[in-house]
Amino acid sequence: MSDIPYKIYLSEKEIPSAWYNVRADMKNKPAPLLNPGTGKPLAVEELYPIFCEELSKQEMDNTHAYIDIPGEVLDFYKMYRPSPLVRAYCLEKSLGTPAHIYYKFEGNNTSGSHKLNSAIAQAYYAKKQGLKGVTTETGAGQWGTALSMATAYLGLDCQVYMVKVSYEQKPFRREVMRTYGAKVTPSPSMETNVGRRINEEFPGTTGSLGCAISEAVEAATSQEGYRYVLGSVLNQVLLHQSVIGLETKAALDKYGIKADMIIGCAGGGSNLGGLISPFVGQMLRGEADYDIIAVEPASCPSLTRGTYTYDFCDTGKVCPLAKMYTLGSGYIPAPNHAGGLRYHGMSSIVSQLYDDGLLTARSVKQTDVFEAAEMFARVEGILPAPESSHAIRVAIDEALKCKETGEAKNIVFGLTGTGYFDMVAYQQYNDGKMSDYVPTDEEIAASVAKCPKV
Amino acid sequence: MSDIPYKIYLSEKEIPSAWYNVRADMKNKPAPLLNPGTGKPLAVEELYPIFCEELSKQEMDNTHAYIDIPGEVLDFYKMYRPSPLVRAYCLEKSLGTPAHIYYKFEGNNTSGSHKLNSAIAQAYYAKKQGLKGVTTETGAGQWGTALSMATAYLGLDCQVYMVKVSYEQKPFRREVMRTYGAKVTPSPSMETNVGRRINEEFPGTTGSLGCAISEAVEAATSQEGYRYVLGSVLNQVLLHQSVIGLETKAALDKYGIKADMIIGCAGGGSNLGGLISPFVGQMLRGEADYDIIAVEPASCPSLTRGTYTYDFCDTGKVCPLAKMYTLGSGYIPAPNHAGGLRYHGMSSIVSQLYDDGLLTARSVKQTDVFEAAEMFARVEGILPAPESSHAIRVAIDEALKCKETGEAKNIVFGLTGTGYFDMVAYQQYNDGKMSDYVPTDEEIAASVAKCPKV
Repeated sequence: MSDIPYKIYLSEKEIPSAWYNVRADMKNKPAPLLNPGTGKPLAVEELYPIFCEELSKQEMDNTHAYIDIPGEVLDFYKMYRPSPLVRAYCLEKSLGTPAHIYYKFEGNNTSGSHKLNSAIAQAYYAKKQGLKGVTTETGAGQWGTALSMATAYLGLDCQVYMVKVSYEQKPFRREVMRTYGAKVTPSPSMETNVGRRINEEFPGTTGSLGCAISEAVEAATSQEGYRYVLGSVLNQVLLHQSVIGLETKAALDKYGIKADMIIGCAGGGSNLGGLISPFVGQMLRGEADYDIIAVEPASCPSLTRGTYTYDFCDTGKVCPLAKMYTLGSGYIPAPNHAGGLRYHGMSSIVSQLYDDGLLTARSVKQTDVFEAAEMFARVEGILPAPESSHAIRVAIDEALKCKETGEAKNIVFGLTGTGYFDMVAYQQYNDGKMSDYVPTDEEIAASVAKCPKV
Repeated sequence: MSDIPYKIYLSEKEIPSAWYNVRADMKNKPAPLLNPGTGKPLAVEELYPIFCEELSKQEMDNTHAYIDIPGEVLDFYKMYRPSPLVRAYCLEKSLGTPAHIYYKFEGNNTSGSHKLNSAIAQAYYAKKQGLKGVTTETGAGQWGTALSMATAYLGLDCQVYMVKVSYEQKPFRREVMRTYGAKVTPSPSMETNVGRRINEEFPGTTGSLGCAISEAVEAATSQEGYRYVLGSVLNQVLLHQSVIGLETKAALDKYGIKADMIIGCAGGGSNLGGLISPFVGQMLRGEADYDIIAVEPASCPSLTRGTYTYDFCDTGKVCPLAKMYTLGSGYIPAPNHAGGLRYHGMSSIVSQLYDDGLLTARSVKQTDVFEAAEMFARVEGILPAPESSHAIRVAIDEALKCKETGEAKNIVFGLTGTGYFDMVAYQQYNDGKMSDYVPTDEEIAASVAKCPKV
């Protein structure tokens, strides 16, 4: 056994004091957001009614490479960060691979995922602006939980619109949010105009993320002292999530480890973008080279099978237009798809990096993902979230390739969270009742055809 | 802010290399186990048909102060240990107390509790003895989950008898165990003689821990190559759990902190006994003094209202007799009691220490416990297990006393686990539907009167 411990913990003093903004080093900047009415690039002031001013500025900032992390956010980070970079000795042994496998584990906090990194930042800027509270939507509940924790800590009001089917089928996530003082409303509700309209048009609907976004935005803009916050996709979120990559790089550097391959799961891109940003920065500056792989579900393959074009960010079409790899804003993954990673598009930053060839992408089937999840759980002890298990699948595949070739590659992947609230999906897998679904080319083409022409 | 970090992490090299056996330093040793047939002290060989030989020896060992932790167990510990000793800066600030509050957090592993510390040790000795597998019972599922993780890691078979009502009402815990490859059987089952007898006698029964123990013991003794393992109460379990206290003491010593008060929740005594053992050792050797407080639920008050006498360890009366503070082996906490800490007796070691005045005990009401749990969750970010929240309640009470007196006491408590699988109880609390129950003196007297006369 080498001198590298099972878990590399940085000290609290080694938590980064600034987030890294990869856009500053990108030659091709991510395309600007467009006003859906005029088709023209948005001015920062146009975002102020929806987002906090400071966050709006971060959303638009393509020039500053580092943005200081406020002291109050750093103090909060110290309650659960630095997160460990774990050497997967037991997984390596079990696979019989010469590869060295590392994972950055973001699940050791009550939200169960990396989402808390941006939730506390967004809640902090809302408080600094003197707001009363924030509104958001949540699907499975990971982001809503993280935001509830952040707002409870700062004493802000928190209103969460939770997709109705999740509200009813995932009561435990809902109760965690309520324990943290959040008001959780099943969406579509009768509390907003858009909610009432949808309930009237589609009686008995169980809701969708797109509808919940529309309700949360309406709630934010119709109440004095409220703004809307979002857990993925946006540039500001990737900025905050850069803390994942910065810590990962610091831990590797501390032990003189040079990563060959960096793997992350990709839904909206918040974890992947955060994990890879300092490494991509090195690539953009010509300082190093890495094999970066985004892993997405075969049932929602925005990078591998989507189109790079302007699209609506939400199904309700109330948000700005963003240029991204997209399956069309009306695309909804098949009902048998478990866990998150069900967003129709991809972060503009990740999309541009992908288009520029700085990363590759793979899609994996659900049953293969859960097979990897179970293998990982049994040898490494951590029950992974379905989302994170997409990255595990490819890390295992790559480690097995190393076994063939005899290469001792350093494989780093992001373990974004734990699966404690996803046991219904595990039960389906344990009972042999989990199935795969891959959309046809025709389905995707029909959905993409509805993207706006700008 | 002082120089003490939010989380004190020892390095992996500082994980203790030996467990500490407090019995070696006790002047009054815990009373010996008795053969229920003869009423005579058991010889170690009499335990071999039930427990592994090495564990039987540990159960009887009153002389060796340190027992080496096997290398394979240490390697497993490295996947989730050392656990952090956390300075509760945010809780202190929220309470406005001059006290310094620390908690040893054992919940950062997939079993969600400290139970894993003994599960891996017991599974290791079973494997070393060449056994095929182990059997056990589980109520809420914390211990069963921990054992499943340990046996999956070592490649042993694991058979868990889960109280039927929990099996049906806590399907997620059951699925975690199944994901780790355990066979989970609702108890009473039709697979054992005792299970069939009970099903016949009480048709439609939803089971009890006592019945599940009896089934697990029968399953172990009737199958070639199996032994029974248990997650609390036993001396061997407290020995393994001493890793909690040893790490806690090492972390405090590293920063020159002298604890004034050490607080732990007490059900069977596994966490409390492990946490306090090195500190009690100092007291027994006259090296230091601490104010040690065991906290138990008002609905199951074995230390504060029980009797110190020999009693059956299980309801089925198949196990040896142990001398302990007990409410009588037929005592069952009221149905409104949430979470664990529902055992009728208390570890013989903890009972003897309590009888000798080395620790005090308090009982707390359920609604007060959940009030403390919610306050803690909101400022410290961790959603605590109901069990652990008993210790939080008393830590907060003591910190508020310090606020009155102006004393800057160092308060240390054990945060044994997380509450992610206890959201039904949190929901009752959030909905204002949680109630308290305190047994009458008559109820307790009637139950204790059924203890065996030896």
